[in-house]
Amino acid sequence: MDFEAYFQGELGALRDEGRYRVFADLERHRGGFPRATRHLEDGSTQDVTVWCSNDYLGMGQNPKVVDAMKAAIDQCGAGAGGTRNISGTNHSHVLLERELADLHGKQSALLFTSGYVSNWAALGTLASKLPGCIVFSDAGNHASMIEGIRHSRAEKVIWKHNNVRDLAARLAAADPRAPKIVAFESVYSMDGDIAPIREIVEVAERFGAMTYLDEVHAVGLYGPRGGGIAEREGLMDRITVIEGTLGKAIGVMGGYIAASEALCDFVRSFASGFIFTTALPPALAGGAVASIRHLKVSNEERLMQRDRVARLRSLLDRRGIPYMPNDSHIVPVMVGNAAKCKWISDLLLDHHGIYVQPINYPTVPRTTERLRITPTPFHSDADIDHLVGALHQLWSRCALSRAVA
Amino acid sequence: MDFEAYFQGELGALRDEGRYRVFADLERHRGGFPRATRHLEDGSTQDVTVWCSNDYLGMGQNPKVVDAMKAAIDQCGAGAGGTRNISGTNHSHVLLERELADLHGKQSALLFTSGYVSNWAALGTLASKLPGCIVFSDAGNHASMIEGIRHSRAEKVIWKHNNVRDLAARLAAADPRAPKIVAFESVYSMDGDIAPIREIVEVAERFGAMTYLDEVHAVGLYGPRGGGIAEREGLMDRITVIEGTLGKAIGVMGGYIAASEALCDFVRSFASGFIFTTALPPALAGGAVASIRHLKVSNEERLMQRDRVARLRSLLDRRGIPYMPNDSHIVPVMVGNAAKCKWISDLLLDHHGIYVQPINYPTVPRTTERLRITPTPFHSDADIDHLVGALHQLWSRCALSRAVA
Repeated sequence: MDFEAYFQGELGALRDEGRYRVFADLERHRGGFPRATRHLEDGSTQDVTVWCSNDYLGMGQNPKVVDAMKAAIDQCGAGAGGTRNISGTNHSHVLLERELADLHGKQSALLFTSGYVSNWAALGTLASKLPGCIVFSDAGNHASMIEGIRHSRAEKVIWKHNNVRDLAARLAAADPRAPKIVAFESVYSMDGDIAPIREIVEVAERFGAMTYLDEVHAVGLYGPRGGGIAEREGLMDRITVIEGTLGKAIGVMGGYIAASEALCDFVRSFASGFIFTTALPPALAGGAVASIRHLKVSNEERLMQRDRVARLRSLLDRRGIPYMPNDSHIVPVMVGNAAKCKWISDLLLDHHGIYVQPINYPTVPRTTERLRITPTPFHSDADIDHLVGALHQLWSRCALSRAVA
Repeated sequence: MDFEAYFQGELGALRDEGRYRVFADLERHRGGFPRATRHLEDGSTQDVTVWCSNDYLGMGQNPKVVDAMKAAIDQCGAGAGGTRNISGTNHSHVLLERELADLHGKQSALLFTSGYVSNWAALGTLASKLPGCIVFSDAGNHASMIEGIRHSRAEKVIWKHNNVRDLAARLAAADPRAPKIVAFESVYSMDGDIAPIREIVEVAERFGAMTYLDEVHAVGLYGPRGGGIAEREGLMDRITVIEGTLGKAIGVMGGYIAASEALCDFVRSFASGFIFTTALPPALAGGAVASIRHLKVSNEERLMQRDRVARLRSLLDRRGIPYMPNDSHIVPVMVGNAAKCKWISDLLLDHHGIYVQPINYPTVPRTTERLRITPTPFHSDADIDHLVGALHQLWSRCALSRAVA
């Protein structure tokens, strides 16, 4: 087989479908977030404002986080030097796991190298090891959960997105003796909609199913201590496993689960993706501890972010620029056409210094192509005015439909 | 199902088999490597010397690496803030990928969050996307490769460890039209033996198979620029994919593949484990660039490490303490009994301040339980004397067999 020709062919097909991804080459500015320098192919640079970061609260530049990371490097060096079992457990991992267990009101927590790995490894291990397990997976679940379930080879039942009645019907139809996991998210990334957690938990409890809740787009952002939507709703103690990330609102990198001591110990003892991989560098663990501790007591970032989100929505309303309504911090501005979505994104970047990555199929369904905008506490009034002004111009040039007031 | 009881039961079974893992809670000392502080359950601490780190060259405390990390934090902050596609590509990722492509003499390189993820995602994607692909996997391959192949659901043929004749026979028996991947490692972690890369490549070429070589225990350590065993043997251009880690000899964290532009672009475009995960923090990328650049021109660490390995082996010989011979930097001291292996490791730690994690089943076959010792450039003559003296004492106390001189 001519491997090179095959790869070229597949890449050509992606290009023809308008799905070939070109990464924006950025340099974030600590202290100037959300400003960044964009590096262009020809070697030149451009100043841009980032409007699509998942560093939702700007904690990636918080002085406490930055200082904790540098202090950990000064104290312990760069990497962890091994897997958690073979010389790689640093005291900062132990402290971080305690901090996470406390954040979610659980007995225990377990760190992974990323949120992706935590979903893949934890769900994959639970679903494959529980004999005869059936996983009930929300239709909107993230790729990492889907791949974890796929990897487990357990039976999978997909229920309609956020539809508790459908979940209940499918649970009722399954073998009552089979161990069951109900897997879902609190805030869904692309639409920004929020799951009816209480109803889901009640249905799961009725059928004796374990609940596995992905809070990656909620940790740090919701609840009085940033514990997520389940904390805000007073439901953390009724969720079996809360999964989260240190790479979004926490501003660093890494993933985790929080659950009972036995469950965490079980995953710790059996998950290949936990056991056979180098531990997080002490600096990342130290930075995450500082970030979580700060967000447990500070509401300022959360309130400021909400204010920025509200202001953006109100200005979009005034200009009739359509966005998907939701109760979260995510503002999906709807374009509805892949080529136009890419075109608007390119013009925003090249002519207005505004960086919002276009979100096209297969990340979202066709005809729902969008600009996924994430206002942070650090976007100023002038930034918002500039963004909405540019969108207004482009909406007119591109003959895109306006929202009806 | 009573999930808690199930988890407790499985954990109890692990304990009964002597396979339950207890992590040593350490605090690495930058500037004092391989010294660390061990935190005990009762809150007290103990100074220990780490003898089982995969920070093989101590680059995790190299001033250039440490300074580059801190400079990146000062410049760009903590995390990357997004996936590579959505605001997460930092210029340091681009520079690191160039550095890695250059290290291995390839057109391109692609970063992952860990070596585990790079194997899982790259092998998983190649094997699942190449129509009718058959993967020929060395029997000794790492868990991350095994899981990647499993995830792909491609046909898998396991060939006898490092046995080129067996590989050739299995390739000859397979459908000549099927695309084939021969997946293997250069240095195997637990035995420290080295693959006959030239012979494997020749056989693979004869059957038109792609070669996928995991060099995680070799990158930085072998070859004039630290490109690994394939560089030392002058074979890099004949390997299709070289996979490596930034978490062992490079001293930081992260994984990568180096290959043709089309292959890297293909994996970049289709691998779920690459696409849907937050990018490495700029500090890790910056630290890795500094480490790789240093090891491309400095032989000092490699020579010093070899000297330490030779000295340890000669002192072990003098005391008749048996170790598995190999041509690498890994010194597996053979105990051959799970309980004794754990017992010796505990005594070394508690009474001698020497930390070597016991390696038992299933990481290695039963009756080959061992202490996997990894001397670094920073282990002094006194450290080695102390280690061998302690082993000598314990060998006598434990009535373990001596090597025949």
